[in-house]
Amino acid sequence: MTDMPWTPDFESYPINARIREAVSSDDAITLTWDDGLRSSYDLYLLRENSPEPTTIHPLSRELHMSILDLPEALRVENLGVTDDGVLEVKWGHSKITSRYHPGWLRSHAWFEDQPQAALPALTPYTLWDAEYLQEPPSLPGTDTLEQPPLFLTWLETISEYGIARLRGLPDEDGLLESIASRVGTLRESNFGRIYEVRIKPAPDSNAYTSVELPQHIDLPTREQPPGLQFLLCRVNSTSGGEGIYVDGFRIAQILREEHAEDFRALCDIPWVFNSRSPEFDYRSQRPVIALNADGSYAEIRFNAWLRAPLKAPLEQQHRAYRAFRCFARYAQDPALQLSFRYEPGDLLAFDNRRILHGRKAFSATGGDRLLEGVYMDRDELASRIRILRRTFGGQPSSVPHGT
Amino acid sequence: MTDMPWTPDFESYPINARIREAVSSDDAITLTWDDGLRSSYDLYLLRENSPEPTTIHPLSRELHMSILDLPEALRVENLGVTDDGVLEVKWGHSKITSRYHPGWLRSHAWFEDQPQAALPALTPYTLWDAEYLQEPPSLPGTDTLEQPPLFLTWLETISEYGIARLRGLPDEDGLLESIASRVGTLRESNFGRIYEVRIKPAPDSNAYTSVELPQHIDLPTREQPPGLQFLLCRVNSTSGGEGIYVDGFRIAQILREEHAEDFRALCDIPWVFNSRSPEFDYRSQRPVIALNADGSYAEIRFNAWLRAPLKAPLEQQHRAYRAFRCFARYAQDPALQLSFRYEPGDLLAFDNRRILHGRKAFSATGGDRLLEGVYMDRDELASRIRILRRTFGGQPSSVPHGT
Repeated sequence: MTDMPWTPDFESYPINARIREAVSSDDAITLTWDDGLRSSYDLYLLRENSPEPTTIHPLSRELHMSILDLPEALRVENLGVTDDGVLEVKWGHSKITSRYHPGWLRSHAWFEDQPQAALPALTPYTLWDAEYLQEPPSLPGTDTLEQPPLFLTWLETISEYGIARLRGLPDEDGLLESIASRVGTLRESNFGRIYEVRIKPAPDSNAYTSVELPQHIDLPTREQPPGLQFLLCRVNSTSGGEGIYVDGFRIAQILREEHAEDFRALCDIPWVFNSRSPEFDYRSQRPVIALNADGSYAEIRFNAWLRAPLKAPLEQQHRAYRAFRCFARYAQDPALQLSFRYEPGDLLAFDNRRILHGRKAFSATGGDRLLEGVYMDRDELASRIRILRRTFGGQPSSVPHGT
Repeated sequence: MTDMPWTPDFESYPINARIREAVSSDDAITLTWDDGLRSSYDLYLLRENSPEPTTIHPLSRELHMSILDLPEALRVENLGVTDDGVLEVKWGHSKITSRYHPGWLRSHAWFEDQPQAALPALTPYTLWDAEYLQEPPSLPGTDTLEQPPLFLTWLETISEYGIARLRGLPDEDGLLESIASRVGTLRESNFGRIYEVRIKPAPDSNAYTSVELPQHIDLPTREQPPGLQFLLCRVNSTSGGEGIYVDGFRIAQILREEHAEDFRALCDIPWVFNSRSPEFDYRSQRPVIALNADGSYAEIRFNAWLRAPLKAPLEQQHRAYRAFRCFARYAQDPALQLSFRYEPGDLLAFDNRRILHGRKAFSATGGDRLLEGVYMDRDELASRIRILRRTFGGQPSSVPHGT
């Protein structure tokens, strides 16, 4: 197997099946595998993924040929399978012979009747409520930062449950940025790169007071709100202020099963979310629940106090307000809530487009309270998980929870 | 008009019509205006937008009452219209009397048969080709930075044409960040906060070589690519390297009219876009053309060299490759292209989700070439335009182009 061609990416592909036969037609090559499965590839697909340096740069693994340089009709002059199982294609009107790795071909195959997602989810989603999770899935902070496989487990936990907690982190300035940067690129907002959640003299958000914050997502006013939020507790000597977290996908699931009409209204009717200030004016228009093409949950956009009045026919206003209040009741239902006290050294990381967060009111006079926060997009979590899995394996780990 | 109530936002609302009659029912209030139009408001909509301090914080203008604190059925005890035209509602089971500004009510009205967008576009879109625009719409750099109304015109130009150029900017370190920050919050990426487009010894992107770059958008691999890109030319003493820009919405329009089958394939079939490196692995799955609910163009995601092989049934592979090549032909068609030389002091700002950009190859040995770049989301442009319009007026300006 020393003569295996490289592949047009940085993945390694196991060889679980061999090519029994390769046949070309005018516009495709069809392979029959030794387990009887068949897969067909458009000739352009094969040609532009040819792993040789005039087509794909061997270092960047980016295509560096224009697809318009290819002739209107590609032609296969010759094809065969080597003893090693490599598919060899000699192209007509060209000096190129392409050699394809059988694992790569198998991995990119489309098999009728057993379609696979072209971009599979990183982990399954485990939906939770207060019975399923009594505490956020938690990991020891220092070990997680020091041991890459545990770091991967932490990220997979965020992906699966939408939330994970590191505990016992040291009290160091700059720690939050340093940890978050090891996941990926931070996402700045008008509240800054690193924001401090504490009482401020002239608050431009309810968050910067001591009042209760009902469950919500942050920055619903953006076309795409941040997918990740990290909150590090630096100081907490006040009474009250417990963090409250709810799985918005679980609420959506309950509504789908038990309040079908409200579920439809939440999926169908877009609200305008806006944030109002003399300095900024962000607005987005989206429904509360967004689904993926396969019906799974893509995003929850729930925030009661950044909503503009609905501009819609009266019957639609009625439907929308009924459904929004129905969602709000579940968001405030203790049976769905994780509720816990932030201890200094706790780092909560959660999917801000899935998990609603809030807090109880706290004493504005007795003691001090400081959380540091930072945002990130889901892309960063996914990229880091993929990179770590190249080294530490691709199986979603079983994750500790409730302890 | 001194007694006009404040409104639950920071807008000012002209009073173009007066309320002739106000009638309440079980779940709504219906207004008849003096021009005969009628508008109805769900009682929850009115109640939660009541401009008094127990409902909405007069400074943050955020709702600071939980909508769950409202009774299941709201009741209007009394309503009337004052001599000034203010709608007054006394709520049952409550001590609250709400006073609504007639301009706000009119602005948030839904009129049957003449529906208005709840979130209207900031400007019209003007689609362009090489005949319509011979050069990027251009403004004098220093004046634009010094005169806020011209700054607003610049931003509106970006919104309307997807591209605008400032010229004659001084050669100062930090200038790009300073200008971009006056628009809004920057968006970092794995390529940095400010990235430098120049020849690099170990390029992790084709951009960092001297080769031709066919038209493309940046970061198609993200769930939401950056909506704005700013490119500042600092140095350009090479030959070649002209910038090439194409209006992706115009290509979509042509395809819709002349290649309906390819247009549908580009709207319907998602590609996986990925960027491959030992350090990161970003992937997204989206079609090339995304439409808004009303059929207008939302986003173009076109990049030939960051595409993964399509995993789909063979017939769909054929459709997708045919359509992608059809789009690519228009992207490379000089009849659609703006082509120009970057001069030091030129700042190009463009919508990276609408406008494709590329460059001709340049000489790697004769002279030097440095562009500085930064990304931003569309949200920032929209927010800044709204804020500036509060002061300088809401009419999209007529914009210079081709000069």
